Amino acid sequence: MADTEFDAYFLGPYGENADLFEELLTDFMRDHVYWRRNFHPESTPPISTSARYSQEFAGVAARMRRELFALSADLKKSVPWFSPRYVGHMSSDLLMSGLVANIMTTLYNPNNVSDQAAPTTVQKEIEVGFQLARMFGFETETAVRPCAWGHLTSGGTVSNYEGLRNLQALKFYPLALARALERLDLDLGAPGPLKRALPELSQWELVNLSVDMVVELRRAYLSAASQLGPQILHSLREAVRAERLETLGWVDFFEVHPGLKTPVVLAPNTAHYSWPKAMKLLGLGTANLRRVDVDGDMRMSAGDLQVVLDGLKDERRPVLSLVAILGTTEFGTIDPIGDIVAQRERALGAGLYFPIHVDAAWGGYLASIFRQEDGTLVPHEMLKEQFHYFPSDKVYGAFAALGSVESITVDPHKLGYIPYPAGAYVARNSGMIDFVTDKAPYAFEGHLEEQGDLRERLRNLGQYILEGSKPGASAASVHVSHRVLPLHTDAFGKLLKKGVRASEYFYDELHKIADRLGEDIIIDIPFKPDCNLVCLTLNPVKNRSAAGLNRFVQSIYDQMRVDASRPIQVRSFFASSTSLQAGDLSPEQRLTLAEQLGIEPKTFCASPRDLEHDASSLLLIRNTLMNPWLDFEDKGLNYIDRYLLFLEELILAELQSYT
Amino acid sequence: MADTEFDAYFLGPYGENADLFEELLTDFMRDHVYWRRNFHPESTPPISTSARYSQEFAGVAARMRRELFALSADLKKSVPWFSPRYVGHMSSDLLMSGLVANIMTTLYNPNNVSDQAAPTTVQKEIEVGFQLARMFGFETETAVRPCAWGHLTSGGTVSNYEGLRNLQALKFYPLALARALERLDLDLGAPGPLKRALPELSQWELVNLSVDMVVELRRAYLSAASQLGPQILHSLREAVRAERLETLGWVDFFEVHPGLKTPVVLAPNTAHYSWPKAMKLLGLGTANLRRVDVDGDMRMSAGDLQVVLDGLKDERRPVLSLVAILGTTEFGTIDPIGDIVAQRERALGAGLYFPIHVDAAWGGYLASIFRQEDGTLVPHEMLKEQFHYFPSDKVYGAFAALGSVESITVDPHKLGYIPYPAGAYVARNSGMIDFVTDKAPYAFEGHLEEQGDLRERLRNLGQYILEGSKPGASAASVHVSHRVLPLHTDAFGKLLKKGVRASEYFYDELHKIADRLGEDIIIDIPFKPDCNLVCLTLNPVKNRSAAGLNRFVQSIYDQMRVDASRPIQVRSFFASSTSLQAGDLSPEQRLTLAEQLGIEPKTFCASPRDLEHDASSLLLIRNTLMNPWLDFEDKGLNYIDRYLLFLEELILAELQSYT
Repeated sequence: MADTEFDAYFLGPYGENADLFEELLTDFMRDHVYWRRNFHPESTPPISTSARYSQEFAGVAARMRRELFALSADLKKSVPWFSPRYVGHMSSDLLMSGLVANIMTTLYNPNNVSDQAAPTTVQKEIEVGFQLARMFGFETETAVRPCAWGHLTSGGTVSNYEGLRNLQALKFYPLALARALERLDLDLGAPGPLKRALPELSQWELVNLSVDMVVELRRAYLSAASQLGPQILHSLREAVRAERLETLGWVDFFEVHPGLKTPVVLAPNTAHYSWPKAMKLLGLGTANLRRVDVDGDMRMSAGDLQVVLDGLKDERRPVLSLVAILGTTEFGTIDPIGDIVAQRERALGAGLYFPIHVDAAWGGYLASIFRQEDGTLVPHEMLKEQFHYFPSDKVYGAFAALGSVESITVDPHKLGYIPYPAGAYVARNSGMIDFVTDKAPYAFEGHLEEQGDLRERLRNLGQYILEGSKPGASAASVHVSHRVLPLHTDAFGKLLKKGVRASEYFYDELHKIADRLGEDIIIDIPFKPDCNLVCLTLNPVKNRSAAGLNRFVQSIYDQMRVDASRPIQVRSFFASSTSLQAGDLSPEQRLTLAEQLGIEPKTFCASPRDLEHDASSLLLIRNTLMNPWLDFEDKGLNYIDRYLLFLEELILAELQSYT
Repeated sequence: MADTEFDAYFLGPYGENADLFEELLTDFMRDHVYWRRNFHPESTPPISTSARYSQEFAGVAARMRRELFALSADLKKSVPWFSPRYVGHMSSDLLMSGLVANIMTTLYNPNNVSDQAAPTTVQKEIEVGFQLARMFGFETETAVRPCAWGHLTSGGTVSNYEGLRNLQALKFYPLALARALERLDLDLGAPGPLKRALPELSQWELVNLSVDMVVELRRAYLSAASQLGPQILHSLREAVRAERLETLGWVDFFEVHPGLKTPVVLAPNTAHYSWPKAMKLLGLGTANLRRVDVDGDMRMSAGDLQVVLDGLKDERRPVLSLVAILGTTEFGTIDPIGDIVAQRERALGAGLYFPIHVDAAWGGYLASIFRQEDGTLVPHEMLKEQFHYFPSDKVYGAFAALGSVESITVDPHKLGYIPYPAGAYVARNSGMIDFVTDKAPYAFEGHLEEQGDLRERLRNLGQYILEGSKPGASAASVHVSHRVLPLHTDAFGKLLKKGVRASEYFYDELHKIADRLGEDIIIDIPFKPDCNLVCLTLNPVKNRSAAGLNRFVQSIYDQMRVDASRPIQVRSFFASSTSLQAGDLSPEQRLTLAEQLGIEPKTFCASPRDLEHDASSLLLIRNTLMNPWLDFEDKGLNYIDRYLLFLEELILAELQSYT
């Protein structure tokens, strides 16, 4: 299954392309130096040509060299992401284009807060937003409404914060607008697509308008006010601002709106820990993060979601957002986003609206597998032919539905093969930015900001996002990589298909070992992988307790984990670990899993008493299969074969000492 | 005034040190390649030696080269930070040590979320936290309580969010603890330094306990509960968790605590736009950002602060934080932090406590000027001898008081001469982290987490901070730079002193021009600079309106600003601009300023009507003086002389066309 197609894209696990890499770096580094020299060459360089011969200069240079050598020495303990022997966390060798672009741009040090500090890289960042949006199936023609937009962040966690912040701004705007109209006693009729005047709507209706509807209503009302003259428009804007949640804060806003219930955010039990963090940060409270059950495959249960939604509707509790996960950090599983989008439509019809934010920090780039060069979806059948199992109906449905969700988090520094830091936030409706601008962008004379060109408006990027100063180097890195390897099934998608195929191979081969060793040990993959992340666990047949299982897995994992106290060379392979919490599973799921693993069900419990036998979680060995060279064959064995052989040897050795 | 001391620290405005730079980069790049090759050299490299000769390889390499060339070409429009001809935004040539360290580390791509993904750079980040803490005068001996801690962020904006989040967690903890004790009917006496049992305190008293007190109380109560057995400790922890603001969210927390008023954040009118952004993000609302007036020099008025505090005390409204600015982004002015700390003590004595967060994103590194190598403060007299005006009593008092504030934002990517992204957050009391941990760090058996070694605990950095994945390259960059040029008055301080001296020279020389051209134009520095940022404005004597002044300044500024449509070579010098809002000034301040500038006071007003004459803000030319070569003299002129000559020529030319 090996191929050589990606040979030129990476520095390589042995630095095989070191000459090309060095040539590019040296060239662009010199190019930068001569750029400096070409800015007013007529002046005398401040550092004299004799400077280097002074004692002082030598002293500084020597100190610098000493400290940099010390750093270089320390870095030798780094995690060997580059190697196909590393299948642990979500990193790998980096795309050479992105790495060189990052380094080259760092020399120029642009700050992508605005084009005054980054005359070229802000535009690249905006284009990256459009590239990602297109991969997800969002509209990217700026003349069409709604047109998407996106930008980079320091990472998926911050993108998730931004996702909630933006949806919150939209969710509560209609309440503020309705109240402002009332307070001004301003009758603007029923402009916009709703056909009813806002003040006629009930509180519940006002907090259940869709994102697109709210964007259009705002435009329609401001435009109607503007017809009555700039003074009316100004008064309306000021009145709305005074009534907004962002102005009043949660406490006072809710005092002004008696009867309004605290909104909830819905997320599966598998959601990343940044979600409770977000709930705390935004003042929503973790108690309002309502967990939706997952099924036995660790995907959000559409059935439980329906139960939760029905309950919320009865309670009249608004839903700020439903968070669906496209590639959970722990297990790589993918929520049934197709079903969830259908549920959103049904619920909206019944008066309960929930915008969907997809946390695709890990899995977002897999969308490139599903997108053809012309922007259409790759037919399911055509994809199936390329894999053994992938993509299941649910998985295909999830990717096909991405174009219908409200916003998406995706991390170029994960499956984008880009250096840290590079997260991204992408939203389907760029009209959102009018709700979160941090400097009033409208000109005094009543000109409506939304009439401006989107690309032009986004040049002052800092106005719309959570962060301030930010590295243009990241933007250049992602932009160049997307140009070199575009985000469709025959380019970037091909690279990711390798990982998916490697996972399927891993899955099949592991089952062979499981059969072979079945008399002595249970080797189990608790959830069928949805993409290129496979978790496995191990239990000697003689062991019947959860705690015993954990001890066994730990003893194996200890021989595959990062240990800064020892040279990396002592390790043959690296994996990562995760744990499965009893509290996140239903009693039936726990029972099924216990039976599958051959442990007494009562030993796997939320509140363990007997620590010799009981455990509240099960340890899993987690394998992230994204390195481009996993399929490289030598002497008849590829890197997955070798890893599995190694694992088998560890297991056998450990079983020997196990009685 | 020129010196050669910093010749070896930078690549140089003409790439004078290109040979050293290239040598270092090439060496460490090769070193990285051989590190890869030394990881299991016994295996066959996956990219074959013949790969490069294939058509496919050549095609990819050519595409990569083409895109990278395009990027390199685009980057030639970048802002020439490196040049002493650039005195605009807050950037300059970068410390070579930091730049090389950043690039070297990017090759290894560590992720500083935890030491599993960054076995060496997480420790460097923690050390950077201690280095900064020491510069500010915080305790950094981990055996002493309270010991400080700090870490890097993607930028000052995120540090500011974290500052508020952390103070909020502490502010409302006592209410949760008191309620948990009541609900459990648990009498633990009055452990800790308070000498009164928490449930006996009034609501107002509970929200006015100092940060240090809350940290100690939490420890004391948990320790008292732990004496009663692990089950009691567990119950108390769970009960407190259930009652916390972070669990309930603002709305439900305030419902549980009737009578509690929404807290406010105090900040001067000059605070950065990230503060209203923070108020929105945290759900506090911009209306609860209470602005404290500034004096005529754009520093927080201690008098107005007292009035505001008295009002809040009467109202019984808690203060979440007072934000003081050390180097405003717009004007470089420094709030009187010494006075504010004294006011905090007096207010605490009277029952109103406000923790102080200092936004020193810009000015934080200037603290290195004030710190001796042994950690003590440089005496004021000794500093004064080194400057004409700096540091004023207020400024000295501000830096001397930094060790007494609760937390500080500082940006290594500004006055730290480090590439983006590198912000930092530093707190005086590391006990804070126990209030914001995002994974329960305590072991099951009732072991108290705070007994662990601080450095050890911080290795899982992601648990305590707002961000998730983050670049180890930034940490390495800052760490190496601080090692090469330590943060005290005789090392890093010397570099910054150059900028301060340049500002004083600029100030004096500009006044000479102002005198020379006084018959035709008013050249004014509206606020005496507190550090190395000088704003000036210009008004032809014949003009009497604010709008006319703005037009004149704009015509000058247009010849000094970044314009991506033209080659950078067409500019002789670059400055930045800012504006002074009428709404931020008192009527008296506006009047004084108008008189100073020779404009009709009524034309400078918050709500302009006649746009030909009126304006709500005044345009200023903003000069950031941090480039290390501003004092380089050639043919008897240094770069400030040249800049001022250039400015004078522009003014004269513009005056000619001005009638």
